[in-house]
Parts: sequence; structure tokens; C-alpha cells
Amino acid sequence: MIGIGAGDPEQLTLQAVKAMRHTDVFFLLDKGEAKADLTRLRRDMLETHLADRTYRVVEERDPERDRSAGGAAYSPAVGDWRSARADIYERMIAEELGEDETGAFLVWGDPALYDSTLGILEEVRERGTVPFAYDVVPGVSSVSALVARHRTGLNRVARPVQITTGRRLAEEGFPEGVDDVVVMLDAHQRFRAFADEDVDIYWGAYIGTPDEILVSGPVSEAAPRIERLRAEARERKGWIMDTYLLRRAPGER
Amino acid sequence: MIGIGAGDPEQLTLQAVKAMRHTDVFFLLDKGEAKADLTRLRRDMLETHLADRTYRVVEERDPERDRSAGGAAYSPAVGDWRSARADIYERMIAEELGEDETGAFLVWGDPALYDSTLGILEEVRERGTVPFAYDVVPGVSSVSALVARHRTGLNRVARPVQITTGRRLAEEGFPEGVDDVVVMLDAHQRFRAFADEDVDIYWGAYIGTPDEILVSGPVSEAAPRIERLRAEARERKGWIMDTYLLRRAPGER
Ligand SMILES: C[S@@+](CC[C@H](N)C(=O)[O-])C[C@H]1O[C@@H](n2cnc3c(N)ncnc32)[C@H](O)[C@@H]1O
Ligand SMILES: C[S@@+](CC[C@H](N)C(=O)[O-])C[C@H]1O[C@@H](n2cnc3c(N)ncnc32)[C@H](O)[C@@H]1O
Repeated sequence: MIGIGAGDPEQLTLQAVKAMRHTDVFFLLDKGEAKADLTRLRRDMLETHLADRTYRVVEERDPERDRSAGGAAYSPAVGDWRSARADIYERMIAEELGEDETGAFLVWGDPALYDSTLGILEEVRERGTVPFAYDVVPGVSSVSALVARHRTGLNRVARPVQITTGRRLAEEGFPEGVDDVVVMLDAHQRFRAFADEDVDIYWGAYIGTPDEILVSGPVSEAAPRIERLRAEARERKGWIMDTYLLRRAPGER
Repeated sequence: MIGIGAGDPEQLTLQAVKAMRHTDVFFLLDKGEAKADLTRLRRDMLETHLADRTYRVVEERDPERDRSAGGAAYSPAVGDWRSARADIYERMIAEELGEDETGAFLVWGDPALYDSTLGILEEVRERGTVPFAYDVVPGVSSVSALVARHRTGLNRVARPVQITTGRRLAEEGFPEGVDDVVVMLDAHQRFRAFADEDVDIYWGAYIGTPDEILVSGPVSEAAPRIERLRAEARERKGWIMDTYLLRRAPGER
């Protein structure tokens, strides 16, 4: 499992490139038309870094719904998806990988953050039908990329930071005891709920790509701008990936 | 500001290497004997990636106390340290960097996590005495490196994760509404407080380096092992850097 960074192909680590160069078969899961761009980016990476050697690419249609676009990102059916994906992974490993060969999944950002590949691989392993060993190569997450582009930190001195989803932010509000919250997987711009509070937002879409958009400022001022830019970009490209950091004055509420 | 990963020199990104290759002067802040190893690692990176070109290195003694070793990591004097460091940075930029030259700070892990370099550079900029512009190159944090080595994720499906300090964990306990907590800057093995609860720990020291140690399991079983290994390693090397993920059963407490 190789973390490939969250958009900028130069965010690959040397370790990731090395792992790619030791790979015989790349398993690419296509998440439907909207994400064709992201599959393209992975293919470009292979062409850039493995131009001088041969490798195989196995492409499969991912049964999963598009999470970044869909609102109810995690429905109760999440278990079913996972099994359906585990079936596909299991078959790919069993049928497409030779005894002594190495396969790789190129995982967006950091494989540890809101990504199901690890869980699915573990499920396949537990089934015990195809034996394999695996390693994880960490990557630069969209969270790190976001704050780097805004030239700000994730936490204030000696303070915690929480990473959560749009849905949980809507359900639970600003988490207790935390002033810095990073929100991912938010299709509903839940930051708008904080327009009346003393909260700053650092927002980014398509971070690290040529389409990157960045907006920051007090939520009250930034929210309308983000809404407009977000709607335009989504319309134009057909899909959007955005993440933001909410920061409130310490001791607020 | 270039994030260089948290120990494994191969965790440098292509972007970081490129930025290093565009740098005329590297500012290395030596954090005292205990951290000489870490300065060494930075110098090795320069030698590996910039062997064919010339660059200057400006080394300064960091006025800051050793945080990873000291218990009261963030004393009220933190503002004084920051000013003292800002003085040094200001002088280095003013005196060591030519008009059209580029300087770089090589920041451990990801510059966004518990690192003061960003805040200090901003302070120098606000003083307005030496004009400069800067960019941040994100890096793989020790948090990402930790969970990759343990082949686990940071969050469970649709759940949040919090990153905090040992001190706050001790003061506030397991944060409300969160089941996955990453703890940094803990010189007092605060995880021991959870030995009677249904909490798993994924612990790592010197992650990504030849000295790496990993332990995982229920806190009740893992804690004594970690204590022993940690004490031994710290004795042997004279310093230690460790991070851990605490994971409790969802809905616990
Ligand atoms: C399924 S999660 C995967 C996260 C990924 N593992 C990572 O480390 O960034 C997808 C979410 O990540 C965020 N994201 C990923 N790449 C992004 C990018 N280039 N720009 C903005 N947000 C991004 C968005 O919040 C999106 O909804
Ligand atoms: C001042 S903070 C800097 C963190 C850094 N910016 C990062 O992204 O990892 C230092 C703390 O990071 C953690 N840390 C950094 N490198 C580590 C490593 N190689 N192994 C274990 N922990 C590490 C430890 O918790 C240490 O107390």
C-alpha cells in the first residue's frame, strides 16, 4: 500500500517511488467517471517514474459509491461495500499476481486517513484464501497539504487538533476542548454553521493540482466566497475534493 | 520551510528534494548534544541529494530547551524562547542570505505539527526588519509514519481522530467523543493511566530510523514492555522520541 500524496505528483516520497519500482502489478480501482482524473494522475506517476521498466496494470471498477460527492457518505451499507471490495481485491491478488510477485495499491494522500484500503486488505487476509504479506508506505495527506499551502500549523502551541468529517461536525458541533478542527468528506459546507462565531477557516479544493483553490479568513466573510467558488468549480469539473481547518479563538464558547 | 519526514531519509518528497536543490543557504538549528543525531541526519540528506552542487550551511545553537526530554515541555517561558529564536532567525536571514538568495529550514516531520518554526518565521516577518517571502513544503509526520509501521489507520470508519500532547492527555483524560488519540511530546508515559480500560496502544520510538522500536497491544499488556524498552533505549542513546496511538472500543465510557 503506497501513499501517493493528495494531488501534487511531486508529493510522492522517495520511499514511494522506490516501492513503485519494486512492483510487478499495480491494482487501480476506478471510482467512476467523476474520478477518472485521479486514475489518470496515478497512470502519469507510473509513466514518469517507471518509464524504463515494464509492469502490469490491473484496472477494476470500484463498487463503492462516490464519497466525496455524496452527502450521506457513510451509509449503513458500508459493510456491504467493504465485502464487495474485498471480493474484488481477493480475486485480483489470487488471479493477477504470480507466486513471487509484488502488487501495489496506490492510495490517495496518506493511507491512514479516511481510506478503506487497509481495512479491506485486512479482511482479505483474515479470510485466509490468498496468503500475502504487505507493508504500508505513508504519504503526505491532504491535511498536511492544506495547511502547508496556507502557511499555517495544524495546532496552536501545546494544543490538540482534531480531524473529523463534515457529517460529525454537523451532528456534534465544534468538538469539546479543541480549537483546531480539520474537516474532510464534507459535501455540505458545514462550516456555514459557524458564521456567527469567532471562527477562522482555511479552506482548499483540489489542493496540489493545477485547479487548486484556496480561501481563508473569518467564516462570516469567507463562507459566501467559498460557496460560490465551490459551486462553480464543481459545475466545471464534475467533481470536487475539499478540506478545511476551522480555528476558533482559544477559550471560545 | 521544508518538511523532511520524521526519521527515514527516504521519506523526503520529490518536492522537498527539489526545494533543497533550489536552496543557497541551509539554516540548521542545533538543539544540543542530545539532538546531534538529528542534525547529522539533515547533513546526510544534503550530502546525498546535493552532492553535485555547492550550498552553504549556517549552524546555530537553538536557545530552546529540549522538549522531547523535558517533562514540563511548554512552560510559561515559551514566549521568551520564541522571541530568542526569532532574534536568531532574524539575524541569520539578514546577515547570511544575499538579496536574491534562497534560504531553507529543514523541519522534522511535517512543519504543521508541534513545530515552532512557522510561528517564529511569522514573528520575524511581522517585525518587518528583514523582508522575505516563504513557502512551506509539507512532510510525512511521525504520526503517519507510526501508523504505517503498525499497518493501521488513524481513524475508524467515519470517526474522528485527535492529536494531542502527553501533558494534555494527563490533564484532560481520553478526549470526549473520540476513540482514536495520537499522543506526542509525552515524556511521562501517560498511557499508563489506561491500563485498566479497554484501550489498545500502538507505540513507536525512533520511527523510521535503524533504532526503531514498535510495540502494540492492550495497554494493560503492552505498558510494562514499553516502559522497559523505553528506559533501556533512552539510557543507551541519551535521548528518545516516541509517539503512540491510543484506541478504545467505540462507545466506551
Ligand atoms: C476518502 S478521503 C481520503 C483522504 C486521503 N487518504 C488523504 O490522506 O488526504 C477523501 C477526502 O480527502 C480530502 N482531500 C483529498 N485530497 C484532497 C485535495 N487534493 N484537496 C482537497 N481535499 C482533499 C477531501 O476532504 C476528501 O473528501
Ligand atoms: C516537537 S514534535 C515535532 C513533530 C514533527 N513536526 C512531526 O511531524 O512528527 C516532536 C515529537 O514528535 C514525535 N516524533 C517525531 N519524530 C519521531 C520519531 N521518529 N519516532 C517517534 N516519535 C517521533 C515525538 O512524539 C516527539 O516528542
